[in-house]
Amino acid sequence: MTETVQLALDEIKPLCEKVLRHNGYGEAHVSAIAHMLYTCQLDDCQSHGLFRLLMCIDTMRNGKIDGNAEPVIAPSSNAIVKADACNAMSLLAVEKALPELINKARQHGIAALAINNCYHFSALWPEVERLASEGLAAMAMVPSHSWVAPAGGKRGSLGTNPIAFSWPRPGQNPFTFDFATSAFARGEIELYRRAGKPLPDGVAVDRDGKPTTDPQAAMDGAMLTFGGYKGSALSIMVELLAGPLIDDLTSLESMEHAAGLGGAPYHGEVILAFDLAQFNGARMEENDARAERLFSDIIDQGARLPSQRRYAARARNLERGYVEVSKQLHDDILKFLE
Amino acid sequence: MTETVQLALDEIKPLCEKVLRHNGYGEAHVSAIAHMLYTCQLDDCQSHGLFRLLMCIDTMRNGKIDGNAEPVIAPSSNAIVKADACNAMSLLAVEKALPELINKARQHGIAALAINNCYHFSALWPEVERLASEGLAAMAMVPSHSWVAPAGGKRGSLGTNPIAFSWPRPGQNPFTFDFATSAFARGEIELYRRAGKPLPDGVAVDRDGKPTTDPQAAMDGAMLTFGGYKGSALSIMVELLAGPLIDDLTSLESMEHAAGLGGAPYHGEVILAFDLAQFNGARMEENDARAERLFSDIIDQGARLPSQRRYAARARNLERGYVEVSKQLHDDILKFLE
Repeated sequence: MTETVQLALDEIKPLCEKVLRHNGYGEAHVSAIAHMLYTCQLDDCQSHGLFRLLMCIDTMRNGKIDGNAEPVIAPSSNAIVKADACNAMSLLAVEKALPELINKARQHGIAALAINNCYHFSALWPEVERLASEGLAAMAMVPSHSWVAPAGGKRGSLGTNPIAFSWPRPGQNPFTFDFATSAFARGEIELYRRAGKPLPDGVAVDRDGKPTTDPQAAMDGAMLTFGGYKGSALSIMVELLAGPLIDDLTSLESMEHAAGLGGAPYHGEVILAFDLAQFNGARMEENDARAERLFSDIIDQGARLPSQRRYAARARNLERGYVEVSKQLHDDILKFLE
Repeated sequence: MTETVQLALDEIKPLCEKVLRHNGYGEAHVSAIAHMLYTCQLDDCQSHGLFRLLMCIDTMRNGKIDGNAEPVIAPSSNAIVKADACNAMSLLAVEKALPELINKARQHGIAALAINNCYHFSALWPEVERLASEGLAAMAMVPSHSWVAPAGGKRGSLGTNPIAFSWPRPGQNPFTFDFATSAFARGEIELYRRAGKPLPDGVAVDRDGKPTTDPQAAMDGAMLTFGGYKGSALSIMVELLAGPLIDDLTSLESMEHAAGLGGAPYHGEVILAFDLAQFNGARMEENDARAERLFSDIIDQGARLPSQRRYAARARNLERGYVEVSKQLHDDILKFLE
């Protein structure tokens, strides 16, 4: 069993802030990043919680990121908000631009936010859930690095390319999903490699494009998309909407930009927001009831809605007042304060 | 081998028009439907070409559809076009509303079209490709009937819920996909049943929620989504965006509306359109080049882009001047003229 440490909820942000500050992030970025790490850790989202501090520090040590850049939101009269992160982490730009996206969605009925020139390490669900908390439906997409082969291919062209979606539900947690269009997350393959375990079938190909269950061969070769040619098509859509649509890098270009260094990939992000009342002719109650009936029909047959486990973890952690993280991770994080 | 007949390209629309007219569709609908059937048949899209005439006639014979209704486009100042199909087939409403969607996308940068109160039988790719031919990226979604179980479930809650996407490519066919979020199309299961062939694994469950490869047990039970819990999450998103978002029926409600009768399902449709120039700051050439590099990287490794086979069929059929359909289907269609 992994040895864990308990962190009180009110210790999480100060710890993150201290580490980020100590490693070159300016106050505004420290605050935005720490808030994201706290949000994910609170939900037991181990892959995107405190663990990502390591990636934030790596990214800073690579020397390309600007730890102090102020994002620039371009004024516009259409339904598109363009936020230039100016070579910094994405989160401060998102934080500054979301109120404007919300305004635009309420004004036009549908609106989009393009974040450009950002390093990106974070889960997408906190951003779409933030919009759902304002009563908007939302969808978000980002590319990453070209580790993933298209259906029928044998080498990486696509990123892990997550899609997140959130739909507001009055009086309860929203319907939310956030998943990679790759069959596995990159980090999962690394975990299998460390554990010396074979991968499941259908997750990766080796450098000759042959199916493999060997984690090292997979890392030297390419990952596959989920759901065969359909997942591959969706992944290409993510490349297009979060890349050329918003004048930012594809996963191929992002990989080149990194030039073999680790840390967070550098690319754009796109978020769409939908104002429910304008779409449904202000028939909110009838349509909330319609959505609730669908959710009930799913739950009543023993199926789970996406994120149910995460919401349960959040409730439990809020109740008990602490989260658990691996001692190893905690030790690694403390070293960044030396 | 299936016996086929050759139909000259200029015979297809007149044949469809004659059949539709003879069976109660008014001229405006006749023309819109025949155009869709021609478009699909031209690309050898057998499941959505002339074959769908049967569903159009079935729908009329069920007695609920209005064969003459004029769609009503509501004026709006936001980025949402609302088109009421008024109980008729969707296509005339789409035809009338698309120019307004295009205007709205050019005005606001992003726009949405909601088609309400329509019977729907058609592929989505002709609609998103029509928008791509105007230089817009586009996404379309519809529910259907609740034949599909959510991940972890055992009975139908979701429709086959297709998602289509198209991205314009200067000087060549767009990047387009159009697929059901169910693992199989409904019609495919019926084809396996008729052929007495077992289904592949992972396509369906029986009425007890157990995995089955028996087509009849699958039709009595439920279909599954593609790609496990991720495909299931996407399918729920389609329900929400093409249902409650636009004040129209979910697949559960559409199934109830049909009350056991066949024919086309009755529900809504949503189409999103993106004006590339407004998103990418008018850097069209740079971003077209970026997208083309991605497409090349996919094709150069021996993978296929979605729709490549369909575009090849289109080119061949335009060149030779005819399409081939099964003699059985052709005979069945001619019977509708009696």
